Amino acid sequence: MDTLGRHLLVEYFGCNPRILDDEATVESGLVEAAHAANTTPLRTVTHRFAPHGVTGVVIIAESHLSIHTWPEAGYASVDFFTCGKSDPLPAKDVLLSRLQATHCEWVEIKRGLDPQGKGAMSSMRWTTPQLEHGADPAAE
Amino acid sequence: MDTLGRHLLVEYFGCNPRILDDEATVESGLVEAAHAANTTPLRTVTHRFAPHGVTGVVIIAESHLSIHTWPEAGYASVDFFTCGKSDPLPAKDVLLSRLQATHCEWVEIKRGLDPQGKGAMSSMRWTTPQLEHGADPAAE
Repeated sequence: MDTLGRHLLVEYFGCNPRILDDEATVESGLVEAAHAANTTPLRTVTHRFAPHGVTGVVIIAESHLSIHTWPEAGYASVDFFTCGKSDPLPAKDVLLSRLQATHCEWVEIKRGLDPQGKGAMSSMRWTTPQLEHGADPAAE
Repeated sequence: MDTLGRHLLVEYFGCNPRILDDEATVESGLVEAAHAANTTPLRTVTHRFAPHGVTGVVIIAESHLSIHTWPEAGYASVDFFTCGKSDPLPAKDVLLSRLQATHCEWVEIKRGLDPQGKGAMSSMRWTTPQLEHGADPAAE
């Protein structure tokens, strides 16, 4: 694997609670997101909590994607960690749509080793998380 | 689950390449880290890459832990994402020792919803990653 990684941390708000609580839908959305990022899914594991909430992880050849959902809050916390030539940004957009989120906030963290062999995270600059709005379901 | 999460992003450097390439040892270290964080492991999944490198994920009742290793670079990229009363900091220290890392760099990201129901990540301040040194194996 390439030692330089891109790690998107995404918080989805205003999601459809029924979707967030449906293990199969969450899993298929995450796998679709993996393909959108141009990554190769290798293993998938999910867990549904009682009384509600789903965790899902897709191990990809380029690192991993993960999701934790809180249907009662309409909220999901997602990580897209990719390496090499994959691009996590389209994955973010897939879940914005699939979770029917009103908006999301996200940051990208540099992981791994830069071309000089130094820790990439240490040299990055933090920016305020970016805000993105979902499509208005009433307009679709 | 508590909707307020603590997410440690940790980069381990100078690790023992043999340990980083041993799927069983990586898995047991991650599970030990989960216990050190006072979390409850629910599911574990690992994958060994050819010619080298291991990915491991432990789904915990409080979110997840993940690791990706690059034995050829003596480097591992780890996430400790916990919620509730668990504490990811001791987990970081467990792997610093278990991977025989010379040092690690880490940051803590606030995830989820703060007590006012707003995105916690947006209100946090980024700090330069913290540096921690491992024990000198020669001194042990």
